[in-house]
Parts: sequence; C-alpha cells; structure tokens
Amino acid sequence: MLKVYGHPMSTCTRRVLLTLAEKGQQAEMVIVDLSKGEQKQPAHLSRQPFGVIPVLEDDGYSLFESRAIIHYLDARFPDPPLSPADVRARGKMEQWISVDYSYFQPAATKIIAQMIWIPMRGGKTDPAIVEQGRAETGKVLDIVDKALGEHPYLAGDQFSLAEISWMPYVDYLIHAKAGDLITSRKNFAAWWERVSTRPTWQKVTAKSA
Amino acid sequence: MLKVYGHPMSTCTRRVLLTLAEKGQQAEMVIVDLSKGEQKQPAHLSRQPFGVIPVLEDDGYSLFESRAIIHYLDARFPDPPLSPADVRARGKMEQWISVDYSYFQPAATKIIAQMIWIPMRGGKTDPAIVEQGRAETGKVLDIVDKALGEHPYLAGDQFSLAEISWMPYVDYLIHAKAGDLITSRKNFAAWWERVSTRPTWQKVTAKSA
Repeated sequence: MLKVYGHPMSTCTRRVLLTLAEKGQQAEMVIVDLSKGEQKQPAHLSRQPFGVIPVLEDDGYSLFESRAIIHYLDARFPDPPLSPADVRARGKMEQWISVDYSYFQPAATKIIAQMIWIPMRGGKTDPAIVEQGRAETGKVLDIVDKALGEHPYLAGDQFSLAEISWMPYVDYLIHAKAGDLITSRKNFAAWWERVSTRPTWQKVTAKSA
Repeated sequence: MLKVYGHPMSTCTRRVLLTLAEKGQQAEMVIVDLSKGEQKQPAHLSRQPFGVIPVLEDDGYSLFESRAIIHYLDARFPDPPLSPADVRARGKMEQWISVDYSYFQPAATKIIAQMIWIPMRGGKTDPAIVEQGRAETGKVLDIVDKALGEHPYLAGDQFSLAEISWMPYVDYLIHAKAGDLITSRKNFAAWWERVSTRPTWQKVTAKSA
C-alpha cells in the first residue's frame, strides 16, 4: 500500500496526488499538520531530513522531493504514461518542469506570499512586491504562452509530468487574485482550461475544498 | 553536430559538458561571453528566452535548463547509461538531483557569492553571511554524507546524473575556500575523491583552467 505524508492543500503534495489520480492508484494519505509544526518533529524528520512535505512510502521504499516522486510513480505504474516516449518531447517535458522550478514558482510565490500568507498571519500586503511579482510572473507566462501556441501541452501533444508540475502553482496564483495573468494570455488560458477541467484535478482539489 | 552555447567555467554548462564527456560525444562549444552580457542580447534570447546559459542544439532541436539537457543526452545517447535501470534507484537519483537544486545550491551560493563574486566586483565579504551559508551547507552535506555511508554513489552502485548535477557546485565550493566542509565528512569526502578523479571531470575542468 502506498502512503503519502503531506497535506492536501500543499502545492507539492498536490503534484503527487494528481499523479496518483492520473494513474488510478490509491494511497493512504497521512496528514502532516503544518500548523502544529509536525514537519519539523522527529517522526517526520526521520522520513524527510529537511523537514518538509511530501514523502512517498511504497512497501519499504521511501522517497522525497515532489518532482522525484512524480517521476518515480510514472515509472512504477507505467499505464497510462505521463512522459512522452519520444526523446525530444521528453526533453521538452524536463525543460518545462525545470522552468516552473527556476522561474515560475519563485515569481508566483512573491504574489502568493503577499496576497495570502502575510495577511493570514495578520501582516500587511506590500503592493510594490505584488507588482514586481506580477511583472516577473508575466514575463515567464509570455514565454510559456508562446510555446503553447505550437502544441496543446507543454511537452507536445500529450498531458505529462510537466503539466502536473505547473498546475498547483497556477491554481494558487488564481486564489491569490492574480487569475488575470492567466486569462489575459490566450494559449496559456486555453491550456489551463484544458488541464484544470480534468476529473483527476477536480478530485485532487475537491478533497481539500 | 551537437552545439553547446555556454561557458566552460559555468556550473550549469559543466553539467552538460560532463555528460557529453561521459557519453564520449563531441560538441561544438559556442562561448556566450557573460562579461559582455551576451546572454541578454537578442541572438541568445532567441535561443534562451530567460537570458541564461547553457543551451543545447541537436540537429534542429533546441533545449535549455541544464537538468533537462542532461536527461535528454542520457536518453539520446544511451551508452553508457547514466540513469539506473532499477525504478527505485532511479527515484533516488531524481531525489538527489532535486536536493542539489532545492537545498545544496542555494546554501553553497551564499558562500560562493561572498567569497568569489562580491570580491571580484570590488565588494567586501560579509563573514556573517559566510557563516550562515556554511551552517546551511553543512546541514545538507550531513544528510548526503549519511546516505553515502550506504552506497558509493548517490543513486546506489552507479555513477549517475545525480553526481553530474552535484559536482560543479561542490567544486565551486572548494574554490570558495570551503573545502573543509567536504573533507570533514568522511563518506562525502570519499565520494568526492571517487567522482572528481574521473578522467571526464578532469577533462571538463582542465579545459577552462
């Protein structure tokens, strides 16, 4: 039996849950309560020495880092495949996974922190940082929008781990009242409509609604 | 003919060069002169819209992000393999690649910036930031050191893309006078001796000496 240690609202946990849903696999979800700091307590540190989530356990095997976990699950449960068979398309999949991590996530996080995390802790949003985050996010989305003008999915014709990597932060951005960054870009908006209406994503996000 | 747009001293370019050396593949190296800001000029931006290096070109196909490129090269030139065939070992390879990116590189960069980049631009090293970087780097290396007590390479018994991801920043750390962080950790030190004496790495680093 697969076990996921994480939280259904966590972007990184959602990558794992979405991959499992796409594969039609069940897993036991063990909630790590971030509000109680459980991720920094010995029980969790023995599974994840950096004190973050998620962790996957699979019959005595343990793995952390969400991008590693989704690659593992794709190889462990090959059907349906979430990586293109074509070497060039697979290269593009890895490129866009890396672009999410290198550029999109840091830029989007500026907005998310100011619009959600800081107010949640009673702090005050800094509009200048939001503007900076919007400019940086917009620049990244322009680049992706252009690529999505050539094919329906990031790696080409097929929904892949690249989509799974991107979706949680795109969704978070919408919750941070920055959805106009998405709707104002035609190809990216069409892509988001295409991927976010998948029953698997609906299931992953409904769980935590 | 393969083309690499980059710089032989760049850590990210070196991942690509090391992978090519391990595969016994030749590539034309096109120097992007960072000191002249060539990476931000239109010719390069048309290849890499984020204005960084490296970029790989392979017969009409173009790819950026160093981790994507090394995965692509491993699939494109399967012999010798740089990813374990075993699904669990491959998961661990991806985990350690991600740990480099998430934890090691940001921590090591604090030291490298203070010890190399800032003095190079005429600035003054801040010892407090160096100390903070050393503490953070040490914490990451303790975790890796423990894993390397169980097997000779990050993913298990075999040199893999995980080593290739880590090596450039470990080397840079030594040049930043933080080599004691490596030599003081037995398993990590033995691993570094094992991997840095490979003729391929010697070749990649000698090129730019």
